[in-house]
Amino acid sequence: MLSKNKIKLIHSLSRKKIRDQEKLFLVEGDKMVREAIRSDHALELICATEGFLASHRVPVNAAREVIPVSHEALQKASLLQSPQNALAIVKMVEGEFQCPVIMNTLSLALDGIQDPGNMGTILRIADWFGINQLLCSADTADCYNPKVIQSSMGAIFRVKVHYVDLGETLKEAANAGMPVFGTFLDGEIIYKAPLSGTGILVMGNEGNGISPRIEEVIPHRLFIPSFPEDQKNAESLNVATAAAICCSEFRRRQLAS
Amino acid sequence: MLSKNKIKLIHSLSRKKIRDQEKLFLVEGDKMVREAIRSDHALELICATEGFLASHRVPVNAAREVIPVSHEALQKASLLQSPQNALAIVKMVEGEFQCPVIMNTLSLALDGIQDPGNMGTILRIADWFGINQLLCSADTADCYNPKVIQSSMGAIFRVKVHYVDLGETLKEAANAGMPVFGTFLDGEIIYKAPLSGTGILVMGNEGNGISPRIEEVIPHRLFIPSFPEDQKNAESLNVATAAAICCSEFRRRQLAS
Repeated sequence: MLSKNKIKLIHSLSRKKIRDQEKLFLVEGDKMVREAIRSDHALELICATEGFLASHRVPVNAAREVIPVSHEALQKASLLQSPQNALAIVKMVEGEFQCPVIMNTLSLALDGIQDPGNMGTILRIADWFGINQLLCSADTADCYNPKVIQSSMGAIFRVKVHYVDLGETLKEAANAGMPVFGTFLDGEIIYKAPLSGTGILVMGNEGNGISPRIEEVIPHRLFIPSFPEDQKNAESLNVATAAAICCSEFRRRQLAS
Repeated sequence: MLSKNKIKLIHSLSRKKIRDQEKLFLVEGDKMVREAIRSDHALELICATEGFLASHRVPVNAAREVIPVSHEALQKASLLQSPQNALAIVKMVEGEFQCPVIMNTLSLALDGIQDPGNMGTILRIADWFGINQLLCSADTADCYNPKVIQSSMGAIFRVKVHYVDLGETLKEAANAGMPVFGTFLDGEIIYKAPLSGTGILVMGNEGNGISPRIEEVIPHRLFIPSFPEDQKNAESLNVATAAAICCSEFRRRQLAS
């Protein structure tokens, strides 16, 4: 039985303020709840149908509280129009960002990405390409927004997201010898540019690209050419699309070397 | 002044049945209407604020009817929650698909893509990479769905979309000597596989991939490897993400050759 207070808590997790205050976030859907249980995140609550709990053999200690609910009760609690059979409240993993975690590895950095769908897709791309650390400027979308969580398809449990002073962090990383890359319209064609298996790749805001303050600290300017190269009609690539192409090219070089 | 009948027509274009019957589709937003005017599509109607019409010097013959409207009237007519300053009704370009239009060029084919956002993003990717023809199986999302149009960012005016019997069309193209590629989990690593500057690249349904009937006619099986290659955690790539990476790799080879 799901109390009114629990339903209220679940609904309130649609708001960033409450998520930050409680250090909790919401995941919905069978697959996502299974991923949450498998992850190293602590779970505060699982609400699921008896069928879900039985068929996935969810242990009673999978969360601080495991509450079997009817489909109707789940419908009341869910933020989705058509909830599946389970939702969970998950504890954020806390800890201050320390530059050494990104040394000797390839990381992504987001400078003011606004759209939750883009952010979720980028998390999924990072996950696929073995990128475990995502740095975000303070004005980037909240990674615990339910829309980000859903579109990340579980990547949120494997890719660590750090909200940092991006300019300062990039400077610190560059000083420690990390190459910093970004995509710019006047950059070097990525297929021919020197890339490396370690470094930070910065992706900019959907409308404005990388901000001037961040641009200053990016020595390696990359560009994804359209085809044919002199074609001027096409608008631009979506930021998640561009991130995918860049990550693929970085990893291709590593696999080839 | 926008008549009730016009508003009714605009709203009705959210439905595929009406779009197919009237051979019309709706585009919304300043940028999209500007793209529609610039395109070779015939425009049935433009509804825009005086400010939009003046600042973009829209000629009175840009559409069969150009109606200046207040922002309030636009709000009533629009399918969007926050319309900008213009919308337009555009005529579909008709004509039966003929296989020769895809000869000696690189094309994309979609086998049952369901999500309008994915379809719009794929149109935008095709546009960027100079892919002018998109073949779609009959069960692929309608390219004139307003959500596809919006997420295509104008690419719908440059990339021709053909709904065809995909199996038959691929067979015909293969018989005419066109290489046919598809992405499969057991495919050859795309970075090492032989690719060509002409051919058809097939992308499959979001959940099920390429259907068995279509798989039969695809001799060139490609795979985008995760990183590290033995990493098994990551779920999968979104179909638009995979399309982007494949198109980039095809074009990289051409630019390198």
